[in-house]
Amino acid sequence: MDTIRFTLEQNEIPTHWYNVVSDMPNPPSPPLGPDGNPVGPEQLAAIFPMAILEQEMSGERWIPIPEPVREIYRLWRPSPLIRATRLEAALGTPARIYYKNEGVSPAGSHKPNTAVPQAYYNRQAGIKRITTETGAGQWGCSMAFAGQMFGIDVRVYMVKISYQQKPFRRSMMQTWGAEVFASPSNMTQTGRDLLAKDPDNMGSLGFAISEAVEEAASRADTNYALGSVLNHVALHQTIIGQEAKKQFEKAGDWPDVVFAPCGGGSSFAGVAFPFLADNAAGGHKGKPTRLVAVEPASCPSLTKGVYAYDFGDASGFTPLMKMYTLGHDFMPPGIHAGGLRYHGDSPLVSQLYHEGLIEAMSVQQLATFDAGVTFARAEGVIPAPESNHAISAAISEALRCKETGEAKTIFFNLTGHGHFDMAAYDSYFAGELGNFDYPAEAIRASLNHLPKVG
Amino acid sequence: MDTIRFTLEQNEIPTHWYNVVSDMPNPPSPPLGPDGNPVGPEQLAAIFPMAILEQEMSGERWIPIPEPVREIYRLWRPSPLIRATRLEAALGTPARIYYKNEGVSPAGSHKPNTAVPQAYYNRQAGIKRITTETGAGQWGCSMAFAGQMFGIDVRVYMVKISYQQKPFRRSMMQTWGAEVFASPSNMTQTGRDLLAKDPDNMGSLGFAISEAVEEAASRADTNYALGSVLNHVALHQTIIGQEAKKQFEKAGDWPDVVFAPCGGGSSFAGVAFPFLADNAAGGHKGKPTRLVAVEPASCPSLTKGVYAYDFGDASGFTPLMKMYTLGHDFMPPGIHAGGLRYHGDSPLVSQLYHEGLIEAMSVQQLATFDAGVTFARAEGVIPAPESNHAISAAISEALRCKETGEAKTIFFNLTGHGHFDMAAYDSYFAGELGNFDYPAEAIRASLNHLPKVG
Repeated sequence: MDTIRFTLEQNEIPTHWYNVVSDMPNPPSPPLGPDGNPVGPEQLAAIFPMAILEQEMSGERWIPIPEPVREIYRLWRPSPLIRATRLEAALGTPARIYYKNEGVSPAGSHKPNTAVPQAYYNRQAGIKRITTETGAGQWGCSMAFAGQMFGIDVRVYMVKISYQQKPFRRSMMQTWGAEVFASPSNMTQTGRDLLAKDPDNMGSLGFAISEAVEEAASRADTNYALGSVLNHVALHQTIIGQEAKKQFEKAGDWPDVVFAPCGGGSSFAGVAFPFLADNAAGGHKGKPTRLVAVEPASCPSLTKGVYAYDFGDASGFTPLMKMYTLGHDFMPPGIHAGGLRYHGDSPLVSQLYHEGLIEAMSVQQLATFDAGVTFARAEGVIPAPESNHAISAAISEALRCKETGEAKTIFFNLTGHGHFDMAAYDSYFAGELGNFDYPAEAIRASLNHLPKVG
Repeated sequence: MDTIRFTLEQNEIPTHWYNVVSDMPNPPSPPLGPDGNPVGPEQLAAIFPMAILEQEMSGERWIPIPEPVREIYRLWRPSPLIRATRLEAALGTPARIYYKNEGVSPAGSHKPNTAVPQAYYNRQAGIKRITTETGAGQWGCSMAFAGQMFGIDVRVYMVKISYQQKPFRRSMMQTWGAEVFASPSNMTQTGRDLLAKDPDNMGSLGFAISEAVEEAASRADTNYALGSVLNHVALHQTIIGQEAKKQFEKAGDWPDVVFAPCGGGSSFAGVAFPFLADNAAGGHKGKPTRLVAVEPASCPSLTKGVYAYDFGDASGFTPLMKMYTLGHDFMPPGIHAGGLRYHGDSPLVSQLYHEGLIEAMSVQQLATFDAGVTFARAEGVIPAPESNHAISAAISEALRCKETGEAKTIFFNLTGHGHFDMAAYDSYFAGELGNFDYPAEAIRASLNHLPKVG
C-alpha cells in the first residue's frame, strides 16, 4: 500500500512565517489616508495591536511564530498533504494531483491560521475584546475559536441575510463562546442609521465591517480583526505553503503548478508565496512553479478589474489600498462561494500579479460544483464552494495533461470542508444552480466611483 | 513544544481486525430463528454476502483486512490520538486525558470503518446494490460514501422525521451518489401498509430496517447492510483500538480506563476490544485497563435492561439475539444522541458485560452537553452528541482524580464531529434541553413483550 497522506511530526510545524515582501522586485505600495498621504501605524493603533501593525509594514524575510501560537496550531497542524490517486484514476490523467487539506481545523477552514495569532497578539497587548464581521461565517467561526483559546471575548457582526440563512454557523460561534449579532444592528451608530432608513435592511459585508470597526475604535479595551486582504493575514497563512514544501520533499515530488481560490487573497497567498520564494531564486532545481489564483467569473477582480487605489470596504471608511478592484461599491452576484465575493484583492497578491510573477484565471459557478462533486465522489471529502474553484482549475489542468500526455504535478489548496454549505449542493443537484454572466455594466459603473488619488 | 497529536504512518494501518471471540471465556450465544433453533449462514445469505457471514460466525483471532479496504482507509486513517492538555488544564486535574478522533473520516464518524469493508465484500460477491436504513444520518452517510468507493448503488431508507429535520445529512448522501427515501415509503409492502393505515406516519428506525431488509430480500442483485450490533461490525471497528495501542506506545503511556459511547455497541467494541485482549493476557505490564461503556440514562440497556433473547428490530423480523435489552418495542425518549437510541446492545458487548469483563454506566443528556461544550472550548473540536457521553464520563473521572490526586491515564473515543448536530447545541444554549427521567414504566411494559425462547 503506497502512502498517499504525507504527514509531518508536530515539531515540524514551521517556526517562522515567510514574508513575501522580502522577495518582491519592488516595495509594496503603501496604504493611503483620505489626504492621499501614506497611513502610518499610529493611525491604525486604535483598532490593531502594534505587533500586528509591525508585521503589516515589515520587510523582514522571516517572522518568528510565537510559541503559544504554535501550541494552538498543533491542535490540528501540520495539516495533511494528500495525493488524490482516486481522482487521478477517475480522470484517467497521467498527472499527479495533490491537495493540502485545510478543512481539518476546528473551524473547518484555513482561517484559524491567522485568527489564532491575531487573538494572541491582542491578548499580549492587554486587549480583552475583539470585534469582527462575518459573511458566510467561516471567518467569524475562526475568530470565535481563536478568541476562546486566548480568553478574549469575541463579538461578531454577521450579515443579516447570512445570520438568518446559516443559523448553524452562528451556533458554532456561540459554542466557542462568541456573541453574534445580525448586522445592521442597533449596537452601533452605523447600524442604527441604517435601520432608521430601512428596518428590513438585510446587511452587507461592507456595513458589517463598518459596525465592527466603529465599536473597536470607540472602546479602549476592544480591537478589530480582519480575516483576509491585509499583509499580516497573508503572512500568517504562509504556514500552509511552508508545510506543503516539506511534505513534497517527503513525497519526492514538486508541483509544476499550484491553484488556490482567490477572493481577498489569503488562501492563495498562504499556499503560493512560499513557492514564490523558490521562483525568485530561480525555481526548485532550476524549474519555476506556476502559481495560479482562481476567482469566480462573476467577481473577477484580478482578471477583469483595474489596478488602482480603492477602499477596502464598501462604504469608504478604510484607508485606500492599491489593488485590483472592481470598484468598492460593486455588489457581486449571489454565488454560493461567499468567501470570494469581494470587490478587491490583497495588495500583495495584486502587485505580484501586476508584475507578472503569478497568474490568475476565473471559473463559472456551475463548473466549480461539477468539480466539487467529482472530487467528493473520488476522494470522500466534501469541499467548501470556495475550494471548488481551485478543484475546477486543477481538474481542467489534469484533463489537459490527459490530452498532451504530460505527467505534470498539480497541487491545490483545499481551503475548507462544505459541511455548512450543503444547501448549495442541494441547489446544484436540484438543477437550480446557475452561472452568472460577467456583470460588465455593474463593474463599469462602480469603476466610475473609484476615489481620485495622486 | 511537546507533541500532543500522535500520528502513525500509513503503512502502520493494521493489517488485521481483532476478533474478541477468541479471547472470550465462553463461546458467543448464537442467534436463534423463530423456531428457537440457531440460525445458520445459509438463512441469512439472501441479504448478506458469505464473506460477511463467515466473519459473523468466526472464532479466528485475526481476520485479514483486504488490501482494497486498507486503500480506502488510508483516505483518513490512521486517525489521530490526541492528548487533551488544554482540557486537563481547564479541569485542573493531574490526570492525563487522551482521545481518538474518529470524526476525521469523510462521513464524520467511525461508521465508515465498517461501511467500507461491507461495500467491498458485497462488490466481491457480485452485488450491485445495497439497501440500508438511517436514523440521524451518520450511518446512511457512511454507507453512501463506501458504496461510491466501490461502485455500488446505495439506497437509504431514512426515518421520515429525520428526513425532514436533517435535510443536510440527506444532501451529503446524495453528494456521494446515494438515493434517499423517507421511510415509510411507497417502495415496499411494509411502507405501503403503514402509509395506508396512516399517511402521516413519521417512521421509526425499526420500520426503516424492515423496508431495507424487505427490498434486499426480494432482489437477487441487492443486499442489506447494518451499521452496528452485529459481530462483523464490531470486528471491523477494532481498527480504532489497535491503532490507539500503537499510538499509546509512541506516547509512552497506557490507559487506565477507556470510555466510549454505547448504543448498538460498535464504537465501544471498536476501541475497547483490543485492550480486552491485553486484559485477557493479564493486562498491559500486569495492569488491566478498565473498559467502560457509557449509555444515555434514558435508554440504559446495559445498566437497566435484562440479559435475554430479543429481536434486533422493533417489528420482530430479525433473528433473536441474546443481549441486554429494554424490550424490542421500547421507544426511547427523543434525546439528541440519535445514534444511542437503541433498545438492545451488541451481543458480544452484552456477553462481556454479563461476564464482568467490561463495565457500564449511564449519563443524563444535560451533563453530556455540559461536557461537550467544555471540551469544545478547551480543544476546539465540536463533538457529536453521542461522543459527548464518553466525554462526560472522562471529565467526571478526571475530576475524581483531582480530588484523590491520582495521575490516571484516561482515554475516550471521540466517535464523530457535531457539524450536523448544531440544532441540538442551539437547544442547549437556549436552555431548552432537558433530561429525561428513567422511563421505568415504558421499559417494564416492553420487557413484558420479550419473545419466549427456550
